[in-house]
Amino acid sequence: MKDVVPRVTVERLPIYLLCLDELPDSDWISSDRLAAMAGVNSAQVRKDLSYLGSYGVRGVGYDVDHLRQNIERELGSCTVAIVGAGNLGAALANYPGFGEKGFDVVGVFDDDAAKVGTRLGSVVVEPASDLEEAIEERAIAIGIIATPAHAAQEVAERLAAAGVQSILNFAPVVLRVPSGVEVRRVDLSTELQILSFYLQHS
Amino acid sequence: MKDVVPRVTVERLPIYLLCLDELPDSDWISSDRLAAMAGVNSAQVRKDLSYLGSYGVRGVGYDVDHLRQNIERELGSCTVAIVGAGNLGAALANYPGFGEKGFDVVGVFDDDAAKVGTRLGSVVVEPASDLEEAIEERAIAIGIIATPAHAAQEVAERLAAAGVQSILNFAPVVLRVPSGVEVRRVDLSTELQILSFYLQHS
Repeated sequence: MKDVVPRVTVERLPIYLLCLDELPDSDWISSDRLAAMAGVNSAQVRKDLSYLGSYGVRGVGYDVDHLRQNIERELGSCTVAIVGAGNLGAALANYPGFGEKGFDVVGVFDDDAAKVGTRLGSVVVEPASDLEEAIEERAIAIGIIATPAHAAQEVAERLAAAGVQSILNFAPVVLRVPSGVEVRRVDLSTELQILSFYLQHS
Repeated sequence: MKDVVPRVTVERLPIYLLCLDELPDSDWISSDRLAAMAGVNSAQVRKDLSYLGSYGVRGVGYDVDHLRQNIERELGSCTVAIVGAGNLGAALANYPGFGEKGFDVVGVFDDDAAKVGTRLGSVVVEPASDLEEAIEERAIAIGIIATPAHAAQEVAERLAAAGVQSILNFAPVVLRVPSGVEVRRVDLSTELQILSFYLQHS
């Protein structure tokens, strides 16, 4: 990739991939149709895909299989650890979408002795004290924080100190992390608040 | 609110609220400090808050309690139904953050007879066939889709037809809904893909 890809483009790539997954490999798709499926405009689609070096054929569009492979290569895949084995951690450990997209959950950690040793999806819950060792041994690239809010900051610091550069945070707190560590926050209440704003102001 | 509030501002309001929740009510906060806590720049904070009619006092900043009430009023609160009582639906029904933010989960629905009648959080799972009646009787404003991917489009259509204007979609599909219906998608794999992109290109 030649240029720096804008963040908004990166955030749309997984959406394009979802749309392409609904089409047969042998198909071609126009930027108009992909735009309609993804809910953006077609100029945006062409611009986004040009960052990946994908240019459609005039009058025909994009080769679906080739475009999908191109996007998948850019997005990559990783090993993942989940910290927190409560309801949310259990749902995440059992979430089939991770495996389908090439993300391999290789550990779930909790400091509750009653949860350690129980099976969640394809892994067995391990004590939180083993987190750093597991990160090193299993080359864990992404840490998912599914702990209560009060525990999240400490977990983030431990993940960062152990070399994890990417954190997906489900706890409803804004984490402070060293520069170079990328955090994405999924706060379920936040999403509801945004919907509620638009309901109130519609 | 006088002007149309930009979508990016709406998406930052819940983040400001989270930051303010960490401060005592009697405090004042500068735009610089709030910006540092929220991870944005201070000019952005001042502009965002000006859309709500909140202007800081020069040299002092914003009254924390007043600002929090102002943001909470803009974001509002709603009744919520969850469709799908699998791992993810169960985690959502038990998520304490919803109640704390004023969102009341008043129903969980599933078409699996083995799940109907079981207790999740403060509600008992109801048959999916009762969804439309419940939406009307309980004035449900937001529908959360926590079903498998193949069922999500039909559920979205049923929610929209029953008058629900806001949908939070956890299924990994792009939903097609009538205009006037707002959809926010939380795809857990998407978030991992975005993190993975930055890991690959860092």
